[in-house]
Amino acid sequence: MKRKKDLKIEIMAVGSELLTPYFQDTNSLYLTERLNELGMEVSYKTIVGDEWDDLVLCIQQALSRADIIIAIGGLGPTKDDRTREAFASVLERKLIFNQKLLQKIEERFKRRGHSMPSVNKKQAYLIDGAEVLENKNGTAPGLWLDTDSKVILLFPGPPHELKPMFDSSVWPKLQSYRKKHTARRVLKITGLTESKIETLISDLYPQEPHARLTTLAYPGQIEIHLTVFSEKNQERAEESICKLEKKILGRLKENVFSTTGEELEEVVGRLLRLHKKNLAMAESCTGGLLSHRLTNIPGSSDYVLQSMVVYSNEAKTYNLGVSADLIEQHGAVSSQVATAMAAGIREKARSSYGLSTTGIAGPAGGTPEKPVGLVYTAMAWDSGTDVVKNLFLGNRETIKFQSTQKALDMVRRHLLKKPGG
Amino acid sequence: MKRKKDLKIEIMAVGSELLTPYFQDTNSLYLTERLNELGMEVSYKTIVGDEWDDLVLCIQQALSRADIIIAIGGLGPTKDDRTREAFASVLERKLIFNQKLLQKIEERFKRRGHSMPSVNKKQAYLIDGAEVLENKNGTAPGLWLDTDSKVILLFPGPPHELKPMFDSSVWPKLQSYRKKHTARRVLKITGLTESKIETLISDLYPQEPHARLTTLAYPGQIEIHLTVFSEKNQERAEESICKLEKKILGRLKENVFSTTGEELEEVVGRLLRLHKKNLAMAESCTGGLLSHRLTNIPGSSDYVLQSMVVYSNEAKTYNLGVSADLIEQHGAVSSQVATAMAAGIREKARSSYGLSTTGIAGPAGGTPEKPVGLVYTAMAWDSGTDVVKNLFLGNRETIKFQSTQKALDMVRRHLLKKPGG
Repeated sequence: MKRKKDLKIEIMAVGSELLTPYFQDTNSLYLTERLNELGMEVSYKTIVGDEWDDLVLCIQQALSRADIIIAIGGLGPTKDDRTREAFASVLERKLIFNQKLLQKIEERFKRRGHSMPSVNKKQAYLIDGAEVLENKNGTAPGLWLDTDSKVILLFPGPPHELKPMFDSSVWPKLQSYRKKHTARRVLKITGLTESKIETLISDLYPQEPHARLTTLAYPGQIEIHLTVFSEKNQERAEESICKLEKKILGRLKENVFSTTGEELEEVVGRLLRLHKKNLAMAESCTGGLLSHRLTNIPGSSDYVLQSMVVYSNEAKTYNLGVSADLIEQHGAVSSQVATAMAAGIREKARSSYGLSTTGIAGPAGGTPEKPVGLVYTAMAWDSGTDVVKNLFLGNRETIKFQSTQKALDMVRRHLLKKPGG
Repeated sequence: MKRKKDLKIEIMAVGSELLTPYFQDTNSLYLTERLNELGMEVSYKTIVGDEWDDLVLCIQQALSRADIIIAIGGLGPTKDDRTREAFASVLERKLIFNQKLLQKIEERFKRRGHSMPSVNKKQAYLIDGAEVLENKNGTAPGLWLDTDSKVILLFPGPPHELKPMFDSSVWPKLQSYRKKHTARRVLKITGLTESKIETLISDLYPQEPHARLTTLAYPGQIEIHLTVFSEKNQERAEESICKLEKKILGRLKENVFSTTGEELEEVVGRLLRLHKKNLAMAESCTGGLLSHRLTNIPGSSDYVLQSMVVYSNEAKTYNLGVSADLIEQHGAVSSQVATAMAAGIREKARSSYGLSTTGIAGPAGGTPEKPVGLVYTAMAWDSGTDVVKNLFLGNRETIKFQSTQKALDMVRRHLLKKPGG
């Protein structure tokens, strides 16, 4: 393809299952992320089924509007897999049998102790002029076709076949189409609202014409996806993203808990390990989610000692030694009970930290004084306790999540203050 | 639009954020589900950004290939919202100011104590000939345009605006395009593999030419999505789906845990409530997920007494009375320890049922004798105990999930055998 200034890219996902309510194309998100790293943007995405006329029509229209067409799926051995044939037909090119390709497919079956079913033979046909993209994780080879005016890429649908194929075979080829060098960071933040973050950093945007910031807000977590472009080289891009990251960190400070992709439960785990501390939890309204998140991290058994889900008042008293009088006087959802729970589980488990949650996750159980979303999170350590009153918005699941986020963040901030944190 | 036999439908999602790696159109899944209920299938889906030329081109091509075009997004007040303008331009129809519409938008702002920003005025323009689709949850009205040859529908992007708009305004209008009457069921199954289910029910398909079965397999759960069509009327469709459901239930029996959308944790909760029983859990490898799932159900505090996450051997001994000798002799991952944990938590919590999990969730910690994925799930009740040895495939998260699924299912099957279960 001749080099043009403004390349239009279309991603086309092929498969009738993608036109049902049950399945969704996710491959295009991965491809978009990788293309963006080259400074290339996607202009159109199309989803079409296996029906021949529909497929041919979509290919014709894609060829009329895009310079690079990336089609995904429909390279399998069944009669419904006709992406290869449809592109050949629209491009008026022959499908040519490739003996080497057949051998590779046969060998793949042989290695697993099977002989190749005859239907797979069609996967050894290539569009005239195309190059093979090797598939290390399946039988369907991919295909790269560079015509005078277009680049056409065909990928198999399964993500574990597509991703390595893109990375090993296509990524190097696309370097010559690279428009920019890019560097990326994801800053994960908790403890600040989206609008507060906006206020703190909005004046940084105009200073950075080569940067793009995308802010994604989730309950309890904000992410800033940062991309910096350089037309010169990769080092330049890395250099300027480091500068920009430093500026943003200077404004948002310890509210940023991760710049490397780590989740909050990983950060807390890493800090606990670093400081040779461990943790036990008493959960009421979070119902086990706090413990579930922490134990999703491999190796967490090194620092998670135990967790108790104590829903009933009796369980709070019997297991954690929270006095029945205290519950009677202040209610189970109170700063006093939260603190007693954290201290109680810490003592019981003989852990460095005790964490607790108690609140009203809803949808029922709220009162004007103690509405749905009122959650106390508390922490106990060797020389003190701390408790926070939170008022979360959302449904039962997001209130549970925000409560765990807050509890984890209390431990993180406490550990950060230690020498070496 | 004139009635045709084979209507082609295209769903077009508009918005530059949908061409980034971060956002995905999910509205089309909802619309597809509802259209399928009318016997209408979607042929194409397109995703395009806010750029005028791209948008116009996609609209032109959609009009060339589809009879019904449903566009989503780009109806807001900003200068990037140009779906309305682009359709008007391609259709060569004027945008006509609608005073009534403006009043409604102004009133919406007034009710919230604001005055309408002037940018919102453009939302009061309608494509000539179109009908308004009222938006009860936002300012952007939708639009229905029936030309001689096409039906065009414009929806706002936020799902909480689109869904009620579709249901209240579009669903009744689409009745006249209805090709079939449909009835749907989702059968959720645990305890059988996909291939076993296939063997048990495959002979039922050919008997039912008007039915469509889609099987979705998740770790620990298989779902059969069942749709039955009738060209006559709704009653006929309901009647035949009941018959087919009965046949499938006759084959798969109590392995089907839900036909009404309920999740396994809801079914278990309902059965516990019905039989006035309650539950306590001792979790090792599931790390709180079992408790998290059960407590996601509102009102679960009625039957979930308490849960303990006991990762360390000491915590198992100290909290649950599992003897150190037993752990020494058989290892923490053993049927003996699982059973002792279930009995221990039941005794401690004085609950009707005690449930436990102990296993190797990975990725590390496996040995040839006790590989990653080996999980014991045990249950204790007033007159006995039961334990199952499982070997699950997958990563840490799916092994945790499958373990909770198995544990919940043990309680479910036990409760089903009780009178009235």
